[in-house]
Amino acid sequence: MSESHLACVKCGHQYPINLINTRCQDCDEPLEVKFELGKVAKDWFQAQHADFFAERYAPFYSYLNPDPTLALGEGQTALVPSAHLKAKIGLKDLCFKNETQNPTWTFKDRGTACSIQNAAALGYKRFGTLSSGNMGASVAAYGGRAGMQTFIMLKDNVPREKIEALTVYGALAFKVSGDYGQLYDRLLEIGADYNIYFSLSDDPLRVEGYKTLAFELFEQMQGQLPDYLAVPLGSGGLWRGILKGFEELRAADITSTMPKLIGVQAQGNSPTVDAFEKGLERIERFENSLTLDHVLENPYPPSGNQVLRKLRTYEGILLKVNNQEILDAMLLLSREGIFAQPASATALAGLIQAVKKDLIASDSRAVVIVTGSGLKYPPVLKEFNFSMTSVELGQLPQVLESAIK
Amino acid sequence: MSESHLACVKCGHQYPINLINTRCQDCDEPLEVKFELGKVAKDWFQAQHADFFAERYAPFYSYLNPDPTLALGEGQTALVPSAHLKAKIGLKDLCFKNETQNPTWTFKDRGTACSIQNAAALGYKRFGTLSSGNMGASVAAYGGRAGMQTFIMLKDNVPREKIEALTVYGALAFKVSGDYGQLYDRLLEIGADYNIYFSLSDDPLRVEGYKTLAFELFEQMQGQLPDYLAVPLGSGGLWRGILKGFEELRAADITSTMPKLIGVQAQGNSPTVDAFEKGLERIERFENSLTLDHVLENPYPPSGNQVLRKLRTYEGILLKVNNQEILDAMLLLSREGIFAQPASATALAGLIQAVKKDLIASDSRAVVIVTGSGLKYPPVLKEFNFSMTSVELGQLPQVLESAIK
Repeated sequence: MSESHLACVKCGHQYPINLINTRCQDCDEPLEVKFELGKVAKDWFQAQHADFFAERYAPFYSYLNPDPTLALGEGQTALVPSAHLKAKIGLKDLCFKNETQNPTWTFKDRGTACSIQNAAALGYKRFGTLSSGNMGASVAAYGGRAGMQTFIMLKDNVPREKIEALTVYGALAFKVSGDYGQLYDRLLEIGADYNIYFSLSDDPLRVEGYKTLAFELFEQMQGQLPDYLAVPLGSGGLWRGILKGFEELRAADITSTMPKLIGVQAQGNSPTVDAFEKGLERIERFENSLTLDHVLENPYPPSGNQVLRKLRTYEGILLKVNNQEILDAMLLLSREGIFAQPASATALAGLIQAVKKDLIASDSRAVVIVTGSGLKYPPVLKEFNFSMTSVELGQLPQVLESAIK
Repeated sequence: MSESHLACVKCGHQYPINLINTRCQDCDEPLEVKFELGKVAKDWFQAQHADFFAERYAPFYSYLNPDPTLALGEGQTALVPSAHLKAKIGLKDLCFKNETQNPTWTFKDRGTACSIQNAAALGYKRFGTLSSGNMGASVAAYGGRAGMQTFIMLKDNVPREKIEALTVYGALAFKVSGDYGQLYDRLLEIGADYNIYFSLSDDPLRVEGYKTLAFELFEQMQGQLPDYLAVPLGSGGLWRGILKGFEELRAADITSTMPKLIGVQAQGNSPTVDAFEKGLERIERFENSLTLDHVLENPYPPSGNQVLRKLRTYEGILLKVNNQEILDAMLLLSREGIFAQPASATALAGLIQAVKKDLIASDSRAVVIVTGSGLKYPPVLKEFNFSMTSVELGQLPQVLESAIK
């Protein structure tokens, strides 16, 4: 086996690096990229200027032969300090990593940017995914840019507006009726048969892309990592990627500590949290998943078992929040100046719950990953009290006078 | 008059810097900020690391006493090289400055970020604007973050969805019936009466915020400025700000050249282009303005005359494009991986027209400013041919086989 390879996250069984969409034949667990990572000088990060992740963080992507023309300016998003909430909920420090500033306005672009590098390097001319939402838009954007014919597979209940926002990038949309769980497995076979690189949620290269969040936080916090990092928990890929990034920073001797991860699911779909609370080693399929914006709605997250294992290793926190907590968190975030989609506000809702339950100390420093833009799912705004004043121009001064605080 | 002051862009008449919403009493033209700007060392830019614009570009904001806590991570957007279009339309170099990566997903945040600094420094506790669109959302986000009571004035035909996307930030929305031109003037009086800092399109501090686009382009292009810069032309504030930035780079002895600006309006509202074509010194009010997404729809742009004057000084290009050219440009941009709102695609449509008309040479290097996200106005997607295939899971291989190229 060459230096760079894939390995099962559970048993460590090794596979060649050029496989795609493969899980461990023994464990049915996801694979991850293994590569030679030596020590990196402590001041290495201070000298970095390139924007393209594979150049900026080159030692952590030594197995890639990256093509910067496939990039879209993903990552390098703002770390925004809390203006009001820090004092309100009682934390020593609180920042928001604003992933809505990515090219298609969600964190998914970090994963897709790395995945498309792999697809191009392996000679694929066709790219695709299974998603009606953030991942679909991201894969459509990068696939089109790379000049690949791009195939987006959708559940059969997806509204037209969501499909329009994918196909504008030039992707072909297929609304597939039938069992969704089966569809996932069939896609792996179909991708192999028709040379389509399906970038699915447990593509090891997606996870590699999410590592950049750890590296950026290290840079932006000038080496002072937060105590806690709150992350919405869907498939588990984002969670795994961030953790792998921190593990690699430690392996490279750049840091010695790791932030604790707070993974948060909505009550409407909490398979990973439920398995954790029951002390299970394997997640169980969640029945009748329903979340506010359908983003965190995978009933059987492909990286769920790995999240459980890592969580036990690193003593993280897993929580679920209800719809009202999510909506409250959305409004609180908006008052800080960040309009997030409900799935993204889930992380803040979990952090607030963790503080209320005294799971974390009030002198803690926390970062919340805000994964996607509120513009991705405006219908949720109907959940809020709506207030608007109609007024004749002549009456405006009087009306303003009564409104002014 | 102190070193820093406001001055009429036409006659140069000086005003104190602490005035807001004031136009020249003699010329009825906008004012701009004047301040002491010495030479800046050529390698000064290479040493900059701060993200906050007023720190990163400190010599160009020496008149501010900036508060970084009011910032939201505006600017520092990606400069994305063209993947396909450069060759297709025949240019030596073509890049897109992706302003959709700003905190509220349009370039307006650069202006608002600077405007709110002024509001806070002058002691205002109330902030506001007149806009149902991008500026409204931006002002709402920054106003709320600053803890100011924020007032957004709207035309009386604005749909509820657009208001929801403003009020989520905590701003108060007022739908005002009556003459819209009068409303603008009345707001200036009302702002003075009720101590509301209305950040309107010709606020000199907004223009100061837009200067950052020039500075970032200089940094990102490593000192090699493009020959042409295509910009959508609305109120004229963005255009003025970018130009002022390049003028200041030259005054500071950092550059000796200036890119030529290509200002583009939609045929549905082209007061500045029409005045230019007629050789007028003052724009005329455009009757029955109607554009695809209502963004570039100000029939009497407050900075229009100044655009005309500067255009003659610097030999820029002004063009208008029709709806089909805008929609075509939107699709072309999407294929590069950037989904822009129609107003933003206007700039690319103008550049393409300029190439077709041989107004610019094919060995030119051009940058297009992509001002705002396509998620801001999804209804326009209905203008495109919509294609989606419904398929039973069992039939998917056959259907894919016929779709594959």
